[in-house]
This record gives sequence, structure tokens and C-alpha cells, in this order.
Amino acid sequence: MYRVPKQPSTKPGFLLVLLLVAGCAGGPPDTPPVEERVVIAHRGASGYLPEHTIAAKAMAYAQGADFIEQDLVMTKDDELVVLHDLDLDSVSNVSTLFPGRARDDGRHYVVDFTLEEIRQLAVSERFKVEDGSAITVSPDRFPLGKSTFRVHTFAEEIELIKGLNKSTGKTVGLYPEIKDPAFHRREGKDISAAVLDVLASYGYSKSTDDIYLQCFDRYELMRIHEDLLPARNMELALVQLIGAEADFAPLLTEEGIREISGYAAGIGPSMHHLVDPDSTASDLKVTGLVALAHAAGLKVHPYTFRREPDQIPAYATDFENLLDIFFNQVGVDGIFTDFPDRAVSFIEADK
Amino acid sequence: MYRVPKQPSTKPGFLLVLLLVAGCAGGPPDTPPVEERVVIAHRGASGYLPEHTIAAKAMAYAQGADFIEQDLVMTKDDELVVLHDLDLDSVSNVSTLFPGRARDDGRHYVVDFTLEEIRQLAVSERFKVEDGSAITVSPDRFPLGKSTFRVHTFAEEIELIKGLNKSTGKTVGLYPEIKDPAFHRREGKDISAAVLDVLASYGYSKSTDDIYLQCFDRYELMRIHEDLLPARNMELALVQLIGAEADFAPLLTEEGIREISGYAAGIGPSMHHLVDPDSTASDLKVTGLVALAHAAGLKVHPYTFRREPDQIPAYATDFENLLDIFFNQVGVDGIFTDFPDRAVSFIEADK
Repeated sequence: MYRVPKQPSTKPGFLLVLLLVAGCAGGPPDTPPVEERVVIAHRGASGYLPEHTIAAKAMAYAQGADFIEQDLVMTKDDELVVLHDLDLDSVSNVSTLFPGRARDDGRHYVVDFTLEEIRQLAVSERFKVEDGSAITVSPDRFPLGKSTFRVHTFAEEIELIKGLNKSTGKTVGLYPEIKDPAFHRREGKDISAAVLDVLASYGYSKSTDDIYLQCFDRYELMRIHEDLLPARNMELALVQLIGAEADFAPLLTEEGIREISGYAAGIGPSMHHLVDPDSTASDLKVTGLVALAHAAGLKVHPYTFRREPDQIPAYATDFENLLDIFFNQVGVDGIFTDFPDRAVSFIEADK
Repeated sequence: MYRVPKQPSTKPGFLLVLLLVAGCAGGPPDTPPVEERVVIAHRGASGYLPEHTIAAKAMAYAQGADFIEQDLVMTKDDELVVLHDLDLDSVSNVSTLFPGRARDDGRHYVVDFTLEEIRQLAVSERFKVEDGSAITVSPDRFPLGKSTFRVHTFAEEIELIKGLNKSTGKTVGLYPEIKDPAFHRREGKDISAAVLDVLASYGYSKSTDDIYLQCFDRYELMRIHEDLLPARNMELALVQLIGAEADFAPLLTEEGIREISGYAAGIGPSMHHLVDPDSTASDLKVTGLVALAHAAGLKVHPYTFRREPDQIPAYATDFENLLDIFFNQVGVDGIFTDFPDRAVSFIEADK
């Protein structure tokens, strides 16, 4: 999932959304039963450990997440690795270990490295480079460059979760995201086909399995629904991710939602698609998108819930109040969060 | 910690213990306050993930363990790695990756490999080899050979725990064990000095820090207490581990416990040192060792509490009943367990 700025109302995309759905918003939508609410660990327990590491996934598992997210990117030798970005620069020492391997934009792309090369990288908390120095993006999170973390493959993460399901007796699900299929296609790679093949090899093939497969690219999701899944005799629950950009706006109309319901089981909007970030505590502007989606039989799993004060919209007092608003007033079915423990505790207390 | 057979009463060591302490056993010892009970994650959340992996430690952390254990062994190039055995054979692919590197006994010793070599190993759930095939030691645990796990250093684990203490705001402690200092000395290595140097470099230097340092070797503990710690201007809480072998018996007398209290802050006996394994539910034979230790001001942290039915003594109905017996009847201060979540839940429910 992309990070969405805290005040996206300054972006035309969100204003458009509000206008488009305003006419459809009735009373508050029916809130799903508490016991059906799901917590999706966004890149693992990424609030506490470097995102998308095996350790962050193990921690998310222990914290009681219902689903654990995998962002998927393809290597030069067609392996699927669990990484958020198309490049390796913001979470690893790639520029130090492989000098001269950047593209013209200065980034080191996963697709230009073999899995064996990528396995050599040291992974750290997300950082940016300023004046030649690495600076952490989230100062309250895991310290930069400490301990030891590596990149792993999609198969290795599936084996982690299935292995934990065996040793704990729980049934935690996968929530893979196919990252930028158009980019991968330009690089000569059919990432969606590769993802489905790995899933099939691990027995994920029915819509009742513990998995949601997500993507921002609606045409790719349609292709998966119409071609790739039937060709493999598979049925999987798909989730249409919705970004902040203006070109997602048509998806947020009654017509757009009806179209999505033709190929997907749910939507993954930003929280700002559901509540106008200009809302105040006493005047909460719920957009009506949840009502539209629920009327079309779609689940709604907004992103991304974070405890840091600068990630809490002005209309909420704190993280738990934000959860209360989204679960009990907006009526979402689940949330993506970097802090699965806090969301699990909130839901447990609400039961 | 060593695994102790379920029925150690057939071993002379345990019979001796019972005889020696019988005269000292009064009524049930005072049980420490519930809020002071500690859960020590034995090799991490090793009931759910391969022991001593970063993932198993992250999981133990998330499950609420108060302390996380590190068994420490030294490499050829004097690095401290977190591994239980002196050899690599039961938890890694060393025999495949490094043929011809075994000693005469057929084992591949950590001390014969550099850290760089050891980092190449794939770590898995503990196994034994029968007829040339690897067979899991604990069938209900994490499946053999799945996902991806590596060996890490003591420093990397300290950075994991300190990093998590930062990102979560908790204060989880270390519980390192110096493995077989006599073996290391024969190999020309002073492992205890190395352990203390690493601890000092990470700021662990006072007995009030969140750390217990454990060892089975009493003479090494005395040396640490009398020489190594003062030479570094350090004070650490030491724990005398007590094995099942007969030569530990002198430690279990009033005289032995008094001696231990001169250099240590606690003892780490087997659970069978505290309750005769021939006990029945209606006739629990508590040995009196806890009373002796508490009278001498020593904490008591017995090992190892496991949920598997063949690891539950006949006098207990199940894992939680076993915890109830040890916390509420025997009066221990904490326990080593492969299942920190279950012990934490038990203690929380008891508050």
C-alpha cells in the first residue's frame, strides 16, 4: 500500500470522491458484527520491526492479526520477493553493496538484481537520504541499521504463515499485493501469473481460503478474474485497492462500485476516502462509500492505521478513537494497520 | 538449557536431591507476588518457531515474555552466536553445506567454523537423523526445513531486544547462558570474558539492569563474580543452573544453597528438582528446594515448561495445571517455557 498524506483533501482526487459519493450517502451503513472484523498486518508488525521482514511477520502473527500482508515484486531471475517498493534503496544497503547498478533515476530496481544478490542485502527500518546520510522515516520505530534482517521470497513467507498455523493451531491468512503489474509487463514479466502459480502450489485456490489478493490496477484485476484464475481452475477473493490519485475517482461512483463487484470481493480505499479529513470530532463527514460498497456485497478494508500523532486525522483524538470511528461509525469490515496488537486489543475489548 | 528426561526419578541425581533436601522442607514456601512472576522465553517462542531464530525471539517478545533467553557459543573467529548446542548438526544443514568438516565424533562444531561460514547455514526446527533422514524432534511444532531462518550473533539479538524496547516502550530483559566454558577454554577461548565485553558494550553493567546471566558451571560463575565482573566495574545478577547429573547434588543442600547465594541472585533448577516426578495429583511431593533458596535470598526459575503431553509430569493434568502447581503451590519466581504466550495468559488471569 502507498502511504497517503495526512491532509489529502488538498489533492483534487479526494475532493472529487466526496462530490461523487455525496449523493449516495444515506444514514450510517450497517456495521459488520464485531466478531467478523479483521485486522490486516500492514507489511507485518511494521510499527515495531522493519517492514516485510520475517521477524515483523512473526511478530504480527503473535499479536493476533487475522491477515498478514505481502507486497510482491519480481527479481531479474523471476523470483517473487516481499518488498514494498520497486527499488531497494529505502530499506537496504543496496547502494553500498552494489555500486554502479542504479538506473538513470538513481534507484536500484529489484528487477535488475537476482534473488541471490538481493539475499545479500542488509534490510533496515525505512529511511531517506539527506546530505548523504540515512535518516529514519519514523523516529519512534525500530532503530536504523540495528540487528539483522534480510529480504525473503513469497514462498518463504507462505511457509512461515502455514508453519505457524500448524504450530499454533490458528488460521491466519495471506493478503498479497501485486505491485505495479504494468511496470513488470514493461520489464517482460507477468507478475500476476507468477503470483497465482505460487499460490496454487501452496494450495490457495478457492475463494473460501484464507486469502485476499489485492492490486491497485483494475485492468489487471479484471484479467486475473477473467483469464488467469479460470485458466488455473482457481477462485480467489480479489480486492480493488483505491489510491488517492484522480484516476481512481470513477471507481467510487455507484457505477464504479458495481463494476468492481463484478470481479472483486472487496475494496481497499484510503481512510480518507471514507471520512473527509476536514471533518471535526463533532462533525464527522462520512462519505457513503462504505454504504455503496456494502450494498454491492463488497468488503471494505481501508488503509493505513498508524498510532503516530501525525498519522491521526484531526477529527480523532488518538489511535483507539480512530479505530472506534471506523469500526463503529463508518462500519468498515477490517483495517490495514502497522500496529496489529493495538487493533486486536480494541476489537477484543469491543466484543 | 538441557532437555531433562520426563522421568528423571530413575536417575540417581534426582533421588539424591530429594534425600538431601527432605530434612529442610517445611510448609509450602511463601509464593512471590503474582505481579513479580516472570516468564522467560526458552530459546524464544521455540514451541512455535525454530529455536533461537530472530523470528522466534520477535514472537516471544510479542507474546509478552519478560525475559528472552540466549544460549551462547563461540565461533572459530571468536564471535558469539546464539545457538543451544556446541555443534550445528541438529538445527542446520551444516553437514550438506560443509562436507568433511566434522570432528571424529561426526559432529560439526561451532568453534571450527567462522561466523561468515555459519551465516550461510539454513536453520530449521530441531531434528535427529535416522537411517539418513532428518526427523523432527517435536512433530507438533514448526515444520522441518520450511521458510528461511539463519544463525545470528549475540550482538544482533541484543539489538533486536533493545530496538523492540524502543519501538514498543516495554522493558524486556536478556537471559544469556554461557555454554560449557570448560569446553571453550580447552579450545583456547574465554567465552565468559567475551560475553561480558559484549554486554558492557551495550550498557548492561548493573545488577538492576534487565538481565540474568546463567551458567551450569559453578566455578565459572564464581570466577565471573570474583574476577571478571569486578575487573570491568560491572555487577550482574547471576543464575546458577542446576542439572540432573549427580555432581550437582551438593548444590542442593543448605550448605550448597548458601554458597550459591554468595555469588548468584538465583537458581535455575529442573522442575523435577522442585517436585518429585513420582508425585501424584493428590500427593504432591515438593522437595523444599524453593524454601531453601528463598531463605537464602535466591530467585528460583525452573526449566522447562512445555505443553506437549509427554512433557507434562503425571501429577499435572495439563500445561496450565502444571503452571498452577509451580506458581501457586511450589512458589517459584519465574519459569523457562517454550510457550511464553500460555504462561503470560496464565499469570494475567491469576492477577
